[in-house]
Amino acid sequence: MTDMASNAPLIGILGGGQLARMLCIAAARLGVLTLTLERDSDCPAAHVSSRHIEGDWNDPRTVRELARRCDAITIENEFIDAGVLETLEADSIRTVPSSLCLAGIQDKLRQRDILRRHGIPSPPFAPVDSRDDLERAAHRFGYPFLLKLRRGGYDGKGNRTLRSPGDIDPAWNDFGGSPGTLLAEGFCRFRMEIAQMTCRAASGETADWPVVETLQKDHVCHMVKAPADIAPGERRKAREVARAAVEAMGGTGSIGVEMFLTGEGQVLVNELAPRVHNSGHYTIESCIASQFENHVRALLGWPLGSTAMTAPAAVMINILGDADGPGFPRGVKDLLDVPGARLHLYGKRECRRGRKMGHITVLADSAEDALERARRAADTLSFDRNR
Amino acid sequence: MTDMASNAPLIGILGGGQLARMLCIAAARLGVLTLTLERDSDCPAAHVSSRHIEGDWNDPRTVRELARRCDAITIENEFIDAGVLETLEADSIRTVPSSLCLAGIQDKLRQRDILRRHGIPSPPFAPVDSRDDLERAAHRFGYPFLLKLRRGGYDGKGNRTLRSPGDIDPAWNDFGGSPGTLLAEGFCRFRMEIAQMTCRAASGETADWPVVETLQKDHVCHMVKAPADIAPGERRKAREVARAAVEAMGGTGSIGVEMFLTGEGQVLVNELAPRVHNSGHYTIESCIASQFENHVRALLGWPLGSTAMTAPAAVMINILGDADGPGFPRGVKDLLDVPGARLHLYGKRECRRGRKMGHITVLADSAEDALERARRAADTLSFDRNR
Repeated sequence: MTDMASNAPLIGILGGGQLARMLCIAAARLGVLTLTLERDSDCPAAHVSSRHIEGDWNDPRTVRELARRCDAITIENEFIDAGVLETLEADSIRTVPSSLCLAGIQDKLRQRDILRRHGIPSPPFAPVDSRDDLERAAHRFGYPFLLKLRRGGYDGKGNRTLRSPGDIDPAWNDFGGSPGTLLAEGFCRFRMEIAQMTCRAASGETADWPVVETLQKDHVCHMVKAPADIAPGERRKAREVARAAVEAMGGTGSIGVEMFLTGEGQVLVNELAPRVHNSGHYTIESCIASQFENHVRALLGWPLGSTAMTAPAAVMINILGDADGPGFPRGVKDLLDVPGARLHLYGKRECRRGRKMGHITVLADSAEDALERARRAADTLSFDRNR
Repeated sequence: MTDMASNAPLIGILGGGQLARMLCIAAARLGVLTLTLERDSDCPAAHVSSRHIEGDWNDPRTVRELARRCDAITIENEFIDAGVLETLEADSIRTVPSSLCLAGIQDKLRQRDILRRHGIPSPPFAPVDSRDDLERAAHRFGYPFLLKLRRGGYDGKGNRTLRSPGDIDPAWNDFGGSPGTLLAEGFCRFRMEIAQMTCRAASGETADWPVVETLQKDHVCHMVKAPADIAPGERRKAREVARAAVEAMGGTGSIGVEMFLTGEGQVLVNELAPRVHNSGHYTIESCIASQFENHVRALLGWPLGSTAMTAPAAVMINILGDADGPGFPRGVKDLLDVPGARLHLYGKRECRRGRKMGHITVLADSAEDALERARRAADTLSFDRNR
């Protein structure tokens, strides 16, 4: 590890995927240097960060060595060992989020417990440590209900919907059933899935972006519409619930709250992400300060920027891989021909079915126009085995 | 030089200053890799490009070695030897701009000749190869008039205003007076200095950004107001003149045309820059596609993006160094507290008096509001010897 000779602030990012990549790009504009850590030297952030270190973000020695040189440390995924962040905090290194926040969120049972203790509306839940617990959950919540891994799940992985008593045994067997690893949750029949990105500085200064609608396909974020087409009262309620959830978790930096809006106008917290989040990618072009920029600002103790939108409507669509193999983007020219389509490609070398390869954002005067053009743009792009 | 394992397109940039840096950031969003070449491994682009090579962009062997790996090659300054680009073109490597365009622009006498041959309005000029030529120019143009180095001048360096016969001898002595190195130009009493960024694809597709007003301080770009507050007819004329100048030069990629607008509404070409340009920095936040994004698109043969502004007015102010020494930015917090101020810092390690260290852009509903906030933001920032 050689030293970077520069006077600029330096932030360390544990993880090297597209979230780290977009953080690096936001940091670069502000003259802030970035140091990324990921096992893969060809990961999306490696080509964009000021320096990339090939290594394990769960190895305390590697992380401490890196953090020693940084003004602040952040993470790009919630699977990083909270204990690693804790050792940094013991060395008075600023971590965003804190180890406590990360630990509270990365264990879905603990997350639900904290939300409940703070009176934040959420679906009913129960720990599942035995097959009997699972039966009891079925009885208590009725079908369908959810069985989830407490840790490590994402994009539908580690989640199972149980629809009838016949699903109990297969689910129990598939999930291994070790004590302390599972929880069950009541199924929420939502009218809309919504999300709120919030950035909270260590000073307590808070900046909320607009409440957005999120649409999933196969449990993966497919589309985000900003702002969500909901009543002003619902928007206010969502904002209050999200902000309370962030405070309950002691969140700092940019942090995402995914919520359910029910037919009766109730807002329930689905889950939090202690980091920048897919539902906030649209902020790059659509807001004065993006979730990435404000996260960098929060990391350095700088004031947060305005979260106001610069256009009446924005739509973001994820570009997912449609097959396994080398990922040569095909259709970029046609995509860029769609008026106002802003393309983001993450530079992933390998394409996999369902893998997030990039996204498109379109701003417009109306939600309909943004949606039509974003769809048109997204339809042009695919990933091919051949250049 | 190790190979970057990736499927993404790769562009090579000769030069590593702030223009290269902002090109790299724009490329990163599009999933395009960048390879920068500059003698200094701690230059602004080195911390942002996918790979940085420490070397001389005027060494044909180094450049050819680099270019071999790239899909296209561009430059960030006009001092690069056009002959180096010519050898690349002979190897069928795409260069933007072409060696011919670069050669035509980097020699100010040749540039003026080409413009005159194409009937593009410009101030009168004459080669100066002797002290007698200088006397003749004084007689022909009257005082004040300008003496310029044909090559290598920038930001007022290599330019001299002669105000009376007493200035002839000192100017002649200071400029060395070798044959083939100087030209004289008539002084234009302009009402406003304006500029037009244009991007031209190899296909001929052309995208013009709005005509802007540029304000210089000590011959260095200080402020850009977009759009320029001029009559619609003047705007049309400026656009036509600029486009004709770009075509006369065979320009490709993003290219800047600096012009004088006279009190009588005449538009004269001052000079061209065969590259992205300071007068187009405001496009990063203010236009759907920035000068940097469209330049990357042009390099790869992709369609150009819309140059429409996303707000009624924008003001860009350069942040110049105010003293020599290590450049620790001071006042970033106060700057970021100014609503809507977008900060760009170039990560230069050494500050020098008058050196471009960064810039600020503010978008607003009115030119007055944008100007007031941009000034307020710029006033907060300085560079200090101590962190």
